[in-house]
Amino acid sequence: MSENELALGIDFGGTSVKIGVAFRSSLIDQAPPISTQDFDGPTPLLDAIQRTVEELKHRHPKIVGAGIGMPGFVNFERGIINTLTNVPGWDGFPLRDVMEERLDLPVVVENDANCMAYAEWKRGAGRGMDDMVAITLGTGVGGGIISNGRMVRGSQFGAGEVGQTTIDWEGRVGHYGNKGALEEYVGNQQIASRALELYAQAGVNRSLSDCTPARLSAAAHGGEEVALQIWDEIARRLASALMNCCWLLNPKAIIIGGGVSKAGDVLFGPLTEHLYAQLSPPFREHLMVLPARFGNEAGAIGAAALAIEAVDNA
Amino acid sequence: MSENELALGIDFGGTSVKIGVAFRSSLIDQAPPISTQDFDGPTPLLDAIQRTVEELKHRHPKIVGAGIGMPGFVNFERGIINTLTNVPGWDGFPLRDVMEERLDLPVVVENDANCMAYAEWKRGAGRGMDDMVAITLGTGVGGGIISNGRMVRGSQFGAGEVGQTTIDWEGRVGHYGNKGALEEYVGNQQIASRALELYAQAGVNRSLSDCTPARLSAAAHGGEEVALQIWDEIARRLASALMNCCWLLNPKAIIIGGGVSKAGDVLFGPLTEHLYAQLSPPFREHLMVLPARFGNEAGAIGAAALAIEAVDNA
Repeated sequence: MSENELALGIDFGGTSVKIGVAFRSSLIDQAPPISTQDFDGPTPLLDAIQRTVEELKHRHPKIVGAGIGMPGFVNFERGIINTLTNVPGWDGFPLRDVMEERLDLPVVVENDANCMAYAEWKRGAGRGMDDMVAITLGTGVGGGIISNGRMVRGSQFGAGEVGQTTIDWEGRVGHYGNKGALEEYVGNQQIASRALELYAQAGVNRSLSDCTPARLSAAAHGGEEVALQIWDEIARRLASALMNCCWLLNPKAIIIGGGVSKAGDVLFGPLTEHLYAQLSPPFREHLMVLPARFGNEAGAIGAAALAIEAVDNA
Repeated sequence: MSENELALGIDFGGTSVKIGVAFRSSLIDQAPPISTQDFDGPTPLLDAIQRTVEELKHRHPKIVGAGIGMPGFVNFERGIINTLTNVPGWDGFPLRDVMEERLDLPVVVENDANCMAYAEWKRGAGRGMDDMVAITLGTGVGGGIISNGRMVRGSQFGAGEVGQTTIDWEGRVGHYGNKGALEEYVGNQQIASRALELYAQAGVNRSLSDCTPARLSAAAHGGEEVALQIWDEIARRLASALMNCCWLLNPKAIIIGGGVSKAGDVLFGPLTEHLYAQLSPPFREHLMVLPARFGNEAGAIGAAALAIEAVDNA
């Protein structure tokens, strides 16, 4: 039943809002992204989103609901924004109720990384698993957890923040005063800075723009030693944080998405090695480390899947 | 209904097996501990346990089931021992089936730290909570997790091992090759060694036996500077691991048991401070850090509560 329903997936990012119509594991229609910078505050931006949704509803009259993935803390149960990481002006905003009225559809509001995890769980690499951890690597590092066949949201709906967990109790200070936060080591910018440092140490002349994950991946695949070294270092740090997820949650799979994950073997090879070397046999023998199925579309697909679940359970 | 049932709680430790009859949150009868060293391998030890249980059943004919807490990896669903941490000879042993036959009772077998967590959740400091983390501090460091109102066991029943999580990606190597394992910093012996080191640095003459958690606690409560320093260091390291539990699971409470937790304010004061300083406001404002209700009896009370749950669900 739910498999054959259409829902809107709205992926609200720091720079743009992407809106698509999801059918199972695909976006069958997508509106042009809406740039958040073009609008001053929630109301004009929501006007633009509403206009876009009305067009999509006109083209797809069978849409049953809308899911919205937000970049920050969200009260999932009540659909209220707690606070967004890099977007001011939304604290305390009752997004679900406002959007249900504006869109004339049932709406669910969820953290964006949880949407990604939900997409992988319901439609992607973690399908059918009762216990899994998803992590998304980009400018920031987010995550989502499934345990006992349910999304882990925690008492304030803030769970799953793998990027804020520590790998060094005396390490670099994260956004929230959290010392050694993983994000401070394996976020895109941190990777670039560290790569620049290692290139300089090796006497190789490189600029910051040579040090994107994509370029470092290409260099490593070409056998360049410094690039291989940087990926090994990323892998060691990631392994440390993911090892914690394993000891705490004993998942069947760890699913890795986001831009950095596209490095493929040069990341997954050393990552799996360092991770397995720090687990007991029963964990190690059964753990899968998998690339995410979805890329940029994960947020919208997951948000739409959550909307369908909510409609089916209503 | 289940509140008024009697069950056996069997706490299988590295040195002794303690067997009690649990009624709600109390052990109303306890047999003398059985020393594991007196028996060579599973069969003679199980004979002794069986004799003790028969006596207890004779005195309490209304016992409905037995729960067994084991020090290691257990397949909870099938009641089979995977491997025990410091007790050889049990790998692959089908403990539940063997004990159901021997005791003529329904039996559940669970990891001992999960039993402690279950006791605190069902009968102790975490009663009524849907999301909590329990940690037990002693020679080793164990833990158990409740999420969405259910025990988190994971895909191989190995979840909840807070003591094996890392606080330093390049740190001391734990039992399983896990670098920076919390247990390697805040286990009783590690605390004692570190205290000795700090006393020596301060020019104070102390022996290892002066450095038990109880003595260090008394010294700190008396205002001794070195002892306060060691508790602050323990608190910082614990806070780092518990902060990871918060970012991943967003529990309503963290419940701390085991011998080390008896230090009281000199531990809980700096621990709460260092933990709260590394969390975002929505987490911090709602998180409770609580001492465990149960001490040595936690394992037996939790195992018995699990047995009652299993009987009620059968």
